Amino acid sequence: MNKKNKKKSCAILIIGNEILSGRTKDQNVSFLASWLNSYLGIKIDEVRIVPDIEKEIIKSVLDLSKNFKYVLTTGGIGPTHDDITAKSISKAFRKKYSYNVEALNILKKYYGNQFNDPRKKMAKMPESSKLIYNPSSAAPGFIIKNVICLPGVPSILRSMVHNLKKFLKPGTKIFSKSIKCETVESKIAHDLSRVQTKYKKFVEIGSYPFFRLGNIGVSVVIRSKKKNYLQSCHKDIIRIVKNKNIKIIKGV
Amino acid sequence: MNKKNKKKSCAILIIGNEILSGRTKDQNVSFLASWLNSYLGIKIDEVRIVPDIEKEIIKSVLDLSKNFKYVLTTGGIGPTHDDITAKSISKAFRKKYSYNVEALNILKKYYGNQFNDPRKKMAKMPESSKLIYNPSSAAPGFIIKNVICLPGVPSILRSMVHNLKKFLKPGTKIFSKSIKCETVESKIAHDLSRVQTKYKKFVEIGSYPFFRLGNIGVSVVIRSKKKNYLQSCHKDIIRIVKNKNIKIIKGV
Repeated sequence: MNKKNKKKSCAILIIGNEILSGRTKDQNVSFLASWLNSYLGIKIDEVRIVPDIEKEIIKSVLDLSKNFKYVLTTGGIGPTHDDITAKSISKAFRKKYSYNVEALNILKKYYGNQFNDPRKKMAKMPESSKLIYNPSSAAPGFIIKNVICLPGVPSILRSMVHNLKKFLKPGTKIFSKSIKCETVESKIAHDLSRVQTKYKKFVEIGSYPFFRLGNIGVSVVIRSKKKNYLQSCHKDIIRIVKNKNIKIIKGV
Repeated sequence: MNKKNKKKSCAILIIGNEILSGRTKDQNVSFLASWLNSYLGIKIDEVRIVPDIEKEIIKSVLDLSKNFKYVLTTGGIGPTHDDITAKSISKAFRKKYSYNVEALNILKKYYGNQFNDPRKKMAKMPESSKLIYNPSSAAPGFIIKNVICLPGVPSILRSMVHNLKKFLKPGTKIFSKSIKCETVESKIAHDLSRVQTKYKKFVEIGSYPFFRLGNIGVSVVIRSKKKNYLQSCHKDIIRIVKNKNIKIIKGV
């Protein structure tokens, strides 16, 4: 394996037994991936889901933060005993796990005379972290080194992402187009392979079979940073599909 | 990090750009996690999602197969150019990537005179693999060493899992109970922490806030291999919740 490879773009680390047990379906990967690409041109290169176990969190955080420009974590920053993300990341980076004064003030103001110890815990994080403000339920996320910690509750996470922008350096947006065909993959596989070779460096072509409402079909998805290559590749595939008398399905 | 730790139970490796781009929401993790626990008492300890890039697949397969008893992969075993799972895993394990005669016969019978080259590709896999039969669309999955390769299309994957049973050694089923409370986490955090300490070795307590249909609440989920500890812990938590005059929400 090439040891000299530069850092990959971005990884997501989901921390939560509830996702691994199958009890809860993750909703954050698809949201974050779409949001990061549309607003910042940042691509997700890997996702990991790990349990609420300190040594597993530490291992993954260190591994991912070494190999990716940004690591976004979700989950484990609430007030209960199973919320151990902040403490684990402090240990991973050998930072003191302590109260952030600004976070403490935000939470104090928000909770008033109901500011109890479990709620105070949400202001504890690795020393020298920067805050990600939370417009929906006050408890902030935080950034330490290249690791960005967000909550697991999808509605809260979504309310916070705009406050992330200033911490992330935009990349190049990836454009995409898709063609839904009434066919099976093996009928177009050779042609898609040929087109992929033609646009090798500039376009990524994916082929995804689907079965829905009694229809069998294939979604051909083309993605590229370059709009002109995307257009040209799209035209080539449309031509192939039409030449084979394959019906194109309109709509989503 | 402790180098002598024994292998963890099971990991899932999702192979697919469409999941990382946010275009497709994964449906297989929650299904496989629930199915493996209910039918075989096998727990998922980690999930990774990687792109359709050979060196990334090889790296993850080698890493996971070394550290976990079983690795289930999903995706990338179809007929198109972006289906590179079988080839990548052959390379990872230094096995010849060649036609499996039995798989070839199954596909030949299924497709008859429409058995073309892209379809033939679905019979190519690491030499000495065992097949996982596919009752819905014929193309089999395969097992090589401790790595089990399944398709990404959820309906096909679901039709195949029963044919997996004979390859997996059952573990101990984990039982669970949950209590939905009309409260906020910080009101019960101290008590949950105390109960978790009491049942430390035998029960895992998770606390998950929710916001639904105008309700704010917390789902307390307790999980254990031991039914008696589960019952006893459940009773303790019910008692705490009732003592605090917190309403328990019935139903799912």
